[in-house]
Amino acid sequence: MKGRTYTADAEPGEAITVAGWVHEVRDLGGIAFLILRDKSGKIQIKLEEDSMDDELVETGLGVARESVVTVTGDVKEEPRAPTDVEIVPESIEVLAESDTELPLDPSGKVDAELSTRLDNRTLDLRKEEVKAIFEIRSEVLRSARDAFRDLGCTEINTPKIVATGTEGGTELFPITYFGEEAFMNQSPQLFKQLMVGSGLERVFEIGPIFRAEEHNTPRHLNEATSIDFESAFVDHTEAMDACEHVVKSAYEGVAENCERQLELLGLDEAFEVPEGDFPRLTYEEAIERINATGELDEQLVWGDDLPTEGERALGDDVGEHYFITDWPSEIKPFYIKDHDDDAQLSTGFDMMHPRMELVSGGQREHRYEHLVEGFEQQGLDPAQFDYYTKMFKYGMPPHAGWGLGGERLVMTMLGLDNIREAVLFPRDRQRLSP
Amino acid sequence: MKGRTYTADAEPGEAITVAGWVHEVRDLGGIAFLILRDKSGKIQIKLEEDSMDDELVETGLGVARESVVTVTGDVKEEPRAPTDVEIVPESIEVLAESDTELPLDPSGKVDAELSTRLDNRTLDLRKEEVKAIFEIRSEVLRSARDAFRDLGCTEINTPKIVATGTEGGTELFPITYFGEEAFMNQSPQLFKQLMVGSGLERVFEIGPIFRAEEHNTPRHLNEATSIDFESAFVDHTEAMDACEHVVKSAYEGVAENCERQLELLGLDEAFEVPEGDFPRLTYEEAIERINATGELDEQLVWGDDLPTEGERALGDDVGEHYFITDWPSEIKPFYIKDHDDDAQLSTGFDMMHPRMELVSGGQREHRYEHLVEGFEQQGLDPAQFDYYTKMFKYGMPPHAGWGLGGERLVMTMLGLDNIREAVLFPRDRQRLSP
Repeated sequence: MKGRTYTADAEPGEAITVAGWVHEVRDLGGIAFLILRDKSGKIQIKLEEDSMDDELVETGLGVARESVVTVTGDVKEEPRAPTDVEIVPESIEVLAESDTELPLDPSGKVDAELSTRLDNRTLDLRKEEVKAIFEIRSEVLRSARDAFRDLGCTEINTPKIVATGTEGGTELFPITYFGEEAFMNQSPQLFKQLMVGSGLERVFEIGPIFRAEEHNTPRHLNEATSIDFESAFVDHTEAMDACEHVVKSAYEGVAENCERQLELLGLDEAFEVPEGDFPRLTYEEAIERINATGELDEQLVWGDDLPTEGERALGDDVGEHYFITDWPSEIKPFYIKDHDDDAQLSTGFDMMHPRMELVSGGQREHRYEHLVEGFEQQGLDPAQFDYYTKMFKYGMPPHAGWGLGGERLVMTMLGLDNIREAVLFPRDRQRLSP
Repeated sequence: MKGRTYTADAEPGEAITVAGWVHEVRDLGGIAFLILRDKSGKIQIKLEEDSMDDELVETGLGVARESVVTVTGDVKEEPRAPTDVEIVPESIEVLAESDTELPLDPSGKVDAELSTRLDNRTLDLRKEEVKAIFEIRSEVLRSARDAFRDLGCTEINTPKIVATGTEGGTELFPITYFGEEAFMNQSPQLFKQLMVGSGLERVFEIGPIFRAEEHNTPRHLNEATSIDFESAFVDHTEAMDACEHVVKSAYEGVAENCERQLELLGLDEAFEVPEGDFPRLTYEEAIERINATGELDEQLVWGDDLPTEGERALGDDVGEHYFITDWPSEIKPFYIKDHDDDAQLSTGFDMMHPRMELVSGGQREHRYEHLVEGFEQQGLDPAQFDYYTKMFKYGMPPHAGWGLGGERLVMTMLGLDNIREAVLFPRDRQRLSP
């Protein structure tokens, strides 16, 4: 709207036009205040029966909450107004009248269930603190991409419709693709590896992944945003360095550019950019420390995957982001390389927030024969993945990489209880709409 | 790889380690040159039988093209070398030996069919000029996002798995979603509109879209990258301004940051950042100008959609990016608003490159009753879209936006013949893998 001023930019002495939603109308008898809310904040509009045009006052008093209006008038200093200024209106125009019955109260005075909020995201995101989450999410993506570019990565886009899944046919959503069976991709893994063998060498992708897991927990989604890195000529330790850089950059970006949003979320004091190197624990150390906490009924032994309670106990113990390295090969996917001097030990790593796993990565198997063997050991038919494996015959460099869950990063950064708080329109077993 | 130097950074007098692919070996008898290629360029490695270790010379002479090697040695000035320097090696290590039979020649000396290239993208992207396309694509996305942030947009991610398509059930890929029928989304249209009615007001998304169109042309894809913008409190003319800004910024970013890539593509002279405003032709003017070219067998009349040959004739005539505005309402989707003073005339617009349409946009219908009517007129059941329409009851501001085809932007920018040249792993009727 040409000539529109954001409410946050209203300066006393100016004649301006603002546009936004009617946050509330307080009628004190004779004088009333309409609070107009826009993207930048709120502003008070004064309505005075005696001194103002009747029609104008009537419009201002009669308009339903959450209607969309434009107001033109003079900005005055007013120490009693919430922002120290108010607008004395010349005109009020209603652009879209709202129903008076709202499925959700955007003023936040009445709490709503998460499912009601997700059904009415438009209204839900009129709440400043909900909007703040998604403004922060936007900044997380921006600063992560900047960090990837610092690292010399080329951004790629890999296909989401695929003939075969990354790790076989389990947990894939089937698609009918012009009469053929296809799937929605669960990870860009194989494609990003194909690209590090190309002249690009180092790539990143931020895009959707799809997992038909039947989990229904506060930290699983069936459609999520994956932040992927893959680089030729690096090993798992250098991939971990890159991971630290990207995660720290996301925190730094938010700290620098989202002060207001952090304040709205009550995090301005509590928000800390991770400092120093993330501790790197071996899997062996990790299970020892978990066992030492006494939190598990049964002691973990070598080869066990870490149960959720184990991760939580260890997270409490470590108290900051950390890596778990040197996993048993048998519990890591086939495309992760084993240590050269110990085939039982994988170069795979996880990067953990104290609350949960954020990243899974490792050095990749770049040797054709070993890779084909890995497929077979995993019970997969290497022929189905020929488009991938055959490229390993033509000079595939050593490489490493990782995938970071975008929503988990935002969720743990902001201390959100449920991962669905970090997605506009989450997809889970029960939720396919909106 | 710690301590690795890119070949482009090799300075005479240094002892360095480089890593990359064996581009070629020229054996002149007694002296030989191994050309090593990495992401940054190429460098000559000298192999001299008399003065060097036998094993080292043997390794260098024996290694197959496209194998991956690291070379450690001293950089010397050598005016006869392609980059004026060469490496006198101390050691050569083969990290991954390539098969000698390659499905595609990465040196580019032997031409390959597009389908062979797409089957072997890893090798295809070892060609400098192919790699250049995707480095430019990465820069296009970067600068488009920067432009959106200039415009005050919040980045959003909308779901790709949906219960109903944007424009009904046609041209959608069906998914089995936990036993329910769902679809891959053909456009973020409805979701981005829901977000401009939230407190975010102005949003963008760059993400995949899926269209089950049976087209099989050099400019259609079944999975593409859509660059989407949507903003509250703007009309179609302001949305066009935003479109111009984003497209120009993409060109500017490439001009500033991809000089080397443009040169590799032979475009360093020809590449022009669009200057001035894009001409805005009404639909009526457009059909008049097309008719005037005499290129069509039959004259176009009001209400006709523009045939491909018509677009081409007009593009040749205009010779730069341009808009077509004021389309007949009946050939634009229901969610596009008509002009207030003429219901036959839509606020929809297309933004055209002389070769083809890049953008489709318009002011949106924000009035609940009109929107529901529009669904019915389009033969769609408004009840199926209740999650969307109901939000229009609670203060939906006037808004406008557009969607830009990412691949078409790159294709037209670089003069590529086939849109598949602008996608790493294109999806079409025939191609589902890799």
